Amino acid sequence: MTLPLRFDWRKLEKFCARVFERAGVPQESAAIIADSLIQADLRGVESHGVVRTAIYLKRVEAGRMDPAAEIRIVNETGAMALIDGGNNFGSVIGTKALQEAMKRAKDFGVGIAAVKGSNHFGTGAYYALKAIAQNQILLVMSNASQTMPPTGGVRPFIGTNPLAVGAPAGEQLPFILDMATSVVARGKIIVASQKGEAIPLGWAIDSDGNPTTDADAALAGSVLPVGGPKGYAISMFIDILSGVLTGAGFGKYVNNMYENWEQPQNVGHFFIALDIDKFIPIDVFKSRMDDYIRSLKEEPKAPGVKEILIPGELEFRQTDRLKAEGITLPLKVVEELAEIGKRYDLELLEAAYQTT
Amino acid sequence: MTLPLRFDWRKLEKFCARVFERAGVPQESAAIIADSLIQADLRGVESHGVVRTAIYLKRVEAGRMDPAAEIRIVNETGAMALIDGGNNFGSVIGTKALQEAMKRAKDFGVGIAAVKGSNHFGTGAYYALKAIAQNQILLVMSNASQTMPPTGGVRPFIGTNPLAVGAPAGEQLPFILDMATSVVARGKIIVASQKGEAIPLGWAIDSDGNPTTDADAALAGSVLPVGGPKGYAISMFIDILSGVLTGAGFGKYVNNMYENWEQPQNVGHFFIALDIDKFIPIDVFKSRMDDYIRSLKEEPKAPGVKEILIPGELEFRQTDRLKAEGITLPLKVVEELAEIGKRYDLELLEAAYQTT
Ligand SMILES: NC(=O)c1ccc[n+]([C@@H]2O[C@H](COP(=O)([O-])OP(=O)(O)OC[C@H]3O[C@@H](n4cnc5c(N)ncnc54)[C@H](O)[C@@H]3O)[C@@H](O)[C@H]2O)c1
Ligand SMILES: NC(=O)c1ccc[n+]([C@@H]2O[C@H](COP(=O)([O-])OP(=O)(O)OC[C@H]3O[C@@H](n4cnc5c(N)ncnc54)[C@H](O)[C@@H]3O)[C@@H](O)[C@H]2O)c1
Repeated sequence: MTLPLRFDWRKLEKFCARVFERAGVPQESAAIIADSLIQADLRGVESHGVVRTAIYLKRVEAGRMDPAAEIRIVNETGAMALIDGGNNFGSVIGTKALQEAMKRAKDFGVGIAAVKGSNHFGTGAYYALKAIAQNQILLVMSNASQTMPPTGGVRPFIGTNPLAVGAPAGEQLPFILDMATSVVARGKIIVASQKGEAIPLGWAIDSDGNPTTDADAALAGSVLPVGGPKGYAISMFIDILSGVLTGAGFGKYVNNMYENWEQPQNVGHFFIALDIDKFIPIDVFKSRMDDYIRSLKEEPKAPGVKEILIPGELEFRQTDRLKAEGITLPLKVVEELAEIGKRYDLELLEAAYQTT
Repeated sequence: MTLPLRFDWRKLEKFCARVFERAGVPQESAAIIADSLIQADLRGVESHGVVRTAIYLKRVEAGRMDPAAEIRIVNETGAMALIDGGNNFGSVIGTKALQEAMKRAKDFGVGIAAVKGSNHFGTGAYYALKAIAQNQILLVMSNASQTMPPTGGVRPFIGTNPLAVGAPAGEQLPFILDMATSVVARGKIIVASQKGEAIPLGWAIDSDGNPTTDADAALAGSVLPVGGPKGYAISMFIDILSGVLTGAGFGKYVNNMYENWEQPQNVGHFFIALDIDKFIPIDVFKSRMDDYIRSLKEEPKAPGVKEILIPGELEFRQTDRLKAEGITLPLKVVEELAEIGKRYDLELLEAAYQTT
């Protein structure tokens, strides 16, 4: 029997949620995890979509994540809360931290949730979108395990620590910056390697620290920070806020989700929520955003460029398209999910896309 | 008579402060402005040093900056204050905003000062260093007049909006990221043009939007955002926080300091101060920073690399050196300052460096 590759996003989300529930994750948490994975797929960020189901499950099954852990505020002063995630799921902890930051922003204009004891929390956009829906601006960052060298270094020391910023607009789409601090996602180098293609100089170095255009040498080496020292410095400040300041791991103390089976990851996050209306009336803000975005899109274009895009725009279009057309997964991911379904007595096929 | 090119930093600072005083700037403000310019020179950021004395003065003399303007809090909620700088000097407004953010951080864990009605505020590091001295972490950003196209655009639309982040360490030097959101400062292209040298592909586009290695064509065109869409998106979020959210100019509404003689600049800034001790004991934070920095510096080095640097490290070394050796200025700047001195009955020569 050939496996289907195209899935209905709602049904696929339900499938994932049920899998997590049967693996012992409380229902409310399972819903958040599945939602965060599906949102990533719908935005076209496949690297952070349902492809992560297997590794998340594996860590739960191995006792390296604790889905029952209490998520506690361990320290608070006015507008800030320090949260210990207790090694629960990253997206469950992140969602709770977001709520805490947003609640404080309503009272104090700004709210901070600083998080330790967490795990991989998915995409930053997931949280930014929720803040936007409440007329708040969100800056969110996370550290991650070692994948990039510092400028001048040879081997991975810092993470591709992501930074996301979201701000609502009025008639225009919201602004969503959501980026890794590497030149490109490592996934793009994997694709080049599979196709036997070269990569541009500047994306990566080999394991001796030499610039390389060879995708395989790059995978054995490290991906480089975006913009040289600037990306290195941005990744480092994200680590300082998410890790050094919170009590989470930082630098070499953030454990690798795929490789370290002895210890929890101890990832840290940092949420800064701003309640727009405390600064400027929300309607004024939104019409200023509309003006900004409209003027940007009307700018003259460079040769060969059809359209000027606003950060996040591509991903919103992708979401519209995939909600209508279904999410297409690589065969390898489908096989993995089907196998997981079998283990937990759930039928992946029921989530397959039906043309009507 | 040949003009001296090397100056004692303390005397040069006094000279600048006196110039501003005689141009009608209150003594306390003049001291801040001179301090901020000299600090930039001492850090090796000549582009933001005393070279700016002339343009700042010109705007005051033309009535386009108001050194007597009151700097007022126009809106506040708990941890945040919205400040109207009233078109006073950027560094005077910035200093006041920093104090406001830091005071609130002491009470609420985090403090925000959002600023409108300001002008060019110099380097972000100037403020970050002051926060570090009080055991706080600072994120500071500012918008700026149009110099970079959005990705896919042809002409300048967004500014090279700077972002600075500072965090103290214990025995190690503090961490100071202070960057423009362009690939390189425009100043580097000016230098290449003067030397008749080519610039690397990727730094700039010509006025038709084509990539160029010709420095003159680049100067007639625009400098590019760092890391392509990532730098564009970072510059834009800085503009959203500093401009759209505060009521300051944003995008095309931030006026050019050198070209617009009809209107104030209406620059906006955004300060986020974090009181470290509210999150984690300051000693613990500092020793974690020391650990982080020490491990980074011990990393193996790429071929040809002597040392791994921490963001800010180069600039601290430069400061030590220039405090000892004196600040060397280009002849053109010395001539300009000497002329200004003459106009305000002050002797630049008295600030010249004396070997003892
Ligand atoms: N949790 C973790 O540990 C972790 C680590 C790294 C990355 N991530 C996630 O990985 C995802 C992908 O990161 P990435 O850096 O590869 O993203 P990317 O390079 O695809 O996009 C980065 C940003 O640039 C914008 N953009 C791209 N092209 C544009 C254009 N032409 N015009 C305007 N804007 C444009 C996008 O909208 C996006 O906001 C993010 O969701 C991030 O949160 C997570
Ligand atoms: N007020 C304004 O409108 C405005 C606008 C743009 C820039 N600026 C200022 O211009 C100044 C210069 O900006 P820039 O982007 O040209 O600076 P830059 O490129 O020289 O340095 C950027 C950062 O990278 C760090 N760095 C550089 N090389 C490094 C290495 N090898 N290892 C580790 N770290 C390294 C530096 O310490 C610095 O923190 C800044 O002070 C900025 O605030 C101000």
